[in-house]
Amino acid sequence: MLPRTYEDQNCSVARALEVLGDRWTMLVIRDAFAGVRRFDDFQRGLGVARNVLSDRLGRLVDEGVLERHRYQERPERFEYRLTDKGVGLWRALIALMQWGDRHYAPPAGPPRVARHRECGGAVDEHFACARCGAQLAAPDVRLEPGPGATQPAAA
Amino acid sequence: MLPRTYEDQNCSVARALEVLGDRWTMLVIRDAFAGVRRFDDFQRGLGVARNVLSDRLGRLVDEGVLERHRYQERPERFEYRLTDKGVGLWRALIALMQWGDRHYAPPAGPPRVARHRECGGAVDEHFACARCGAQLAAPDVRLEPGPGATQPAAA
Repeated sequence: MLPRTYEDQNCSVARALEVLGDRWTMLVIRDAFAGVRRFDDFQRGLGVARNVLSDRLGRLVDEGVLERHRYQERPERFEYRLTDKGVGLWRALIALMQWGDRHYAPPAGPPRVARHRECGGAVDEHFACARCGAQLAAPDVRLEPGPGATQPAAA
Repeated sequence: MLPRTYEDQNCSVARALEVLGDRWTMLVIRDAFAGVRRFDDFQRGLGVARNVLSDRLGRLVDEGVLERHRYQERPERFEYRLTDKGVGLWRALIALMQWGDRHYAPPAGPPRVARHRECGGAVDEHFACARCGAQLAAPDVRLEPGPGATQPAAA
C-alpha cells in the first residue's frame, strides 16, 4: 500500500500542517510575528539554507499566509508580511510556545514572553491578559525577550 | 556557514517543533487525543510507513509525550498513551485545527468539532465553551465528527 498523502486526510489539523509544511515554516512565521520582513533577515535569524528558505517563503505566499511587497525598485527587493490569514496563526504559535516554555525553558525562564501590549501583563493559556483580564486579539500582543533570553529576540 | 540546528535556537517554539519533529508527529498526537492507542491503529489511520511511524512514536516516548504500556504478554504488545506532558499539547492542536477549519474546511463544514464534554458547546478560540462559558481544560473537551466529516473521525 502506498502511504497516503496529507491531502487525503479530511482533517483540519492535517490541512494546517500541510501548509505549515515543516519546522522551518513555523519558525518563519514566528519571525514574521516578531517583525522580520526581509529574506536576508529571515536567513540570518534562522540560519537556514537559502534555497530552503526561498521554498518555504514561496509556499507561504502561494497559500496566502504571507504577502510579498516590493520595497525597492533597482535592484528589485521584496519583503514578506503576514496576511490576515497568517496573523490568524498567532494562537497556534503562542500555544506551542507556552508548551515549549513549560517543558524546555532554560533555568532562567522563558526565552520570550508574550505580553498584552497595553498593560504589559503576560498572555495566559486562554489568550487573556493575566494582569487585567482582557481577552486578547493578535494586535494586542507583543513578543519580548524573556528572563531566559541569551540575546535580544529576533527583530 | 553551516545551517544552524534547532538546538541552537533559544526559543520555545523551536524547541517545541524539535520534539514535534514533523507533520506526522502532530497527526500521531491528534490520533492519540482521539483515543488511538495501538501501533496498527495509528498506522491504518495515518497510512504512514511503518518505519516512519515507529521512529515518530519512539521519539515521542523518549521525550515523555507518550508512554508505552504493555497490554499483552504473549506475544508482547504495547500501546501508546499521552502523558500529562502530551495532553498539554491540546491547546496547540485545537488552535491549529481552528485555523485549518477557518481556511480549509470542506463546504459542509469542519471535519471535526471540539466540544465541551459536559454541555456539548463548541470550544471557542479562547478555549472556553461557546455555550456555557466555562473555561475548559483538556479532560473537558472531546473531538467528534463535524458536519464536514466524510467518515467517522479516527477512533
